[in-house]
Amino acid sequence: MASASQALPSVLERIDADLDNSLHRLFELIRIPSISTDSAYKDHCRAAADHVAKDLSGLGLEASIRPTAGHPVVVAKSNGATTRNDGPRVLFYGHYDVQPVDPLDLWKTKPFEPKIESLPDGRKVIHGRGACDDKGQFMTFVEALRAYKTVTGKLPIDVTMMIEGEEECGSKNLFDFVRSNAAEFKRDLALVCDTGMWDAKTPLVTTSLRGLLYEEVIVTCADRDLHSGLFGGAAANPIRVLARIVASLHDQNGRVMVPGYYDGVPELPADIKADLKALNLTPEQFLGQVGLKAPAGEKDRMLIEQISTRPTCDPNGIIGGYTGEGAKTVIPAQASVKVSFRLVGTQDPEKIRESFRAFVRAQLPPDAKAEFIDHACSPALQVAYENPALAKARAALTDEWGTKAVAVGSGGSIPIVGDFKSVLGMDTLLVGFALDDDRVHSPNEKYDLTSFHKGTRSWARIIAALAG
Amino acid sequence: MASASQALPSVLERIDADLDNSLHRLFELIRIPSISTDSAYKDHCRAAADHVAKDLSGLGLEASIRPTAGHPVVVAKSNGATTRNDGPRVLFYGHYDVQPVDPLDLWKTKPFEPKIESLPDGRKVIHGRGACDDKGQFMTFVEALRAYKTVTGKLPIDVTMMIEGEEECGSKNLFDFVRSNAAEFKRDLALVCDTGMWDAKTPLVTTSLRGLLYEEVIVTCADRDLHSGLFGGAAANPIRVLARIVASLHDQNGRVMVPGYYDGVPELPADIKADLKALNLTPEQFLGQVGLKAPAGEKDRMLIEQISTRPTCDPNGIIGGYTGEGAKTVIPAQASVKVSFRLVGTQDPEKIRESFRAFVRAQLPPDAKAEFIDHACSPALQVAYENPALAKARAALTDEWGTKAVAVGSGGSIPIVGDFKSVLGMDTLLVGFALDDDRVHSPNEKYDLTSFHKGTRSWARIIAALAG
Repeated sequence: MASASQALPSVLERIDADLDNSLHRLFELIRIPSISTDSAYKDHCRAAADHVAKDLSGLGLEASIRPTAGHPVVVAKSNGATTRNDGPRVLFYGHYDVQPVDPLDLWKTKPFEPKIESLPDGRKVIHGRGACDDKGQFMTFVEALRAYKTVTGKLPIDVTMMIEGEEECGSKNLFDFVRSNAAEFKRDLALVCDTGMWDAKTPLVTTSLRGLLYEEVIVTCADRDLHSGLFGGAAANPIRVLARIVASLHDQNGRVMVPGYYDGVPELPADIKADLKALNLTPEQFLGQVGLKAPAGEKDRMLIEQISTRPTCDPNGIIGGYTGEGAKTVIPAQASVKVSFRLVGTQDPEKIRESFRAFVRAQLPPDAKAEFIDHACSPALQVAYENPALAKARAALTDEWGTKAVAVGSGGSIPIVGDFKSVLGMDTLLVGFALDDDRVHSPNEKYDLTSFHKGTRSWARIIAALAG
Repeated sequence: MASASQALPSVLERIDADLDNSLHRLFELIRIPSISTDSAYKDHCRAAADHVAKDLSGLGLEASIRPTAGHPVVVAKSNGATTRNDGPRVLFYGHYDVQPVDPLDLWKTKPFEPKIESLPDGRKVIHGRGACDDKGQFMTFVEALRAYKTVTGKLPIDVTMMIEGEEECGSKNLFDFVRSNAAEFKRDLALVCDTGMWDAKTPLVTTSLRGLLYEEVIVTCADRDLHSGLFGGAAANPIRVLARIVASLHDQNGRVMVPGYYDGVPELPADIKADLKALNLTPEQFLGQVGLKAPAGEKDRMLIEQISTRPTCDPNGIIGGYTGEGAKTVIPAQASVKVSFRLVGTQDPEKIRESFRAFVRAQLPPDAKAEFIDHACSPALQVAYENPALAKARAALTDEWGTKAVAVGSGGSIPIVGDFKSVLGMDTLLVGFALDDDRVHSPNEKYDLTSFHKGTRSWARIIAALAG
């Protein structure tokens, strides 16, 4: 029986020949509006799980839909039905859920009706919510497996798939699920396809991820909405209270003011800092693409540090009072804000959560009270540089793209990956093909056709390199 | 032909006997959802205008519906068809439009299905949006006219009615309408029923109104919504920018920080201040009814000053980013706030508007820009103490309620009343029957049945006193 590396040339040919069918399968998945954060889309999330499980069954994996307190997890296992394999047993993690699509009127195409568009510069892109994050991305791995199965009749590596449905709302139920089934998911190496390229030509293995603390604060003053003409000047206004709290989160230099926030934030070794500096990431390059020009983070840090190795704090949503058309002279009873913190190094998300809540409570005037909702609380992750999978993946990516693959930390967060290390004892290989202009989490999300096609080919090569 | 004062005893009897029919007519008007600030309710506003015009025609007034750039104004005139009349020609002003009803889920009854409820303390109240502000209030005057018409066959006084449809969104088009038709509306005295009682037993003539400056600020940073994992720490966040601006509007002592804001704010004469102090308005009394206890205005001012004679500033609505259920890690492109200022004395609303806009612009970081929408811009009003109508109205109110009527300034604003003085040269007699617990502008607005019934009787007495 041929090994994965012997089969590789035929597998790459098969991927090229089957591209249209691969796209057809991806489009079927994008058409399911699996928005996990909004309970109105619960049935669609279930439909997406069913769809993925059925697809993985077709590859010869033993697939099941496993319930959680929230959206279910699709689990699928090769159970030894693989070709000759000297490589690690892998756990592949992805997610079938997507972000909300509001504001809908800014979309040029319908978010759940995927379309391919040719850009003026010759690139072809796939439009749709989830085209990149994470449906397009995780399907690159699935399509690579499918090509092996077609060419060799078997799967190329011992694989357990875990495709969850709550990544976009903090993976809250996945933590317990992984802990409760640790023996089942403890393999030798985790693979994830939910990160980006360095640029459109340069592949990237992501070596660190920021953690995520996501809190919602609801401030209540009076027991009802008040008329500002009658009560204005005397009644506590929760918008005013909340604005002061949000304004106090950063000082004038962009430093986060929550006490103890920087405990566990490492200073980079001089050589790594020099490497980052050599990348010469300019505001024009990075911010210019979204109409900005001035880095808004800590003033004494390089832009590349602000977006990858430094912790941040951003209000992600605020609402209170009358927000319709026109004017209403109301002092609302409530106002609320959602705030997220991206964490690095060994910052302790639970300690910071308590410190943040105390920081908010300390600023409440006599007539205001605050409630808190915990939406996410996960630490940062650093991938071990010495894991041989890292060098193999870089070499495979370099072969596919013809440009040397870089290894850099990312500013994003994938909540569960920290637990793969701390609970399951595995390193995670983070390889993805998103580009900075993919507009993930925004209207008009897209995925380059090249990302999808060469991403699939990249996984075929990485699998061959790992399996031997 | 009997004078209005000769007819008064019969008119008061008629009002008592006709109360059920008066309520039936009020309910018909409340059932029309004439929300002026939301363009989706345009046709309903027109329907309310038609309804009012038809009702006034039935009283023998010559009624017409006069177009503006926004919702129309109902104008109705007695044209001399009155009983013997030695009194002033009056302009009665009211408004048929109402406030929005959100949040709808806090209403115990449907806002546009009026109902009478008996409270545990024996009071009967009318529930519904507009039950008080201003449908219930202006109908007290209409019902008083109707009783005179029934008893004497004629109207008791020379009256021009002006019932507008944009008071709840700043009366923007009414200003031009009044200026363009000044000769038609310049009478001897204006009457308005859109203010409150001192308490449930004590009638009140309102002697001043605060002006209103209402601005909306829209802050834009990036040209699209961004993923906080990729851009967090580097991209300007409009919620952060807006929070700083809102937080900067007041200092720690509750003083408004817009430059020049206090120009034209008078210090009260010692005797008036002593009068206010003697009213002994306590936080328990005034704030306790809405679940608050600590006055939130300027720390060096009495509560009664904070709500009536001092200028204020309140954010009335704020929105930006993801405000749905759950969490979304977005840095939004835009965030906006609505801010209103209640003005007193000779504060110049246009100067303050320019100063406010400059104050906001000065705080914008490099990547943020601000747009402004002007929702209202009207000065404060002081009624002349020496106008004989004031003493007549106080005496009439004292007769009806059996408690001496007080004369105090109000914290509220009625945009057009300033122009009655400055453009038409008339004083305005502000008499109303709202109570502090009427929840105007909030869910569960109500009007006491006593306010409606004795309010109608009060106007019958005031008309008799004015007409002689």
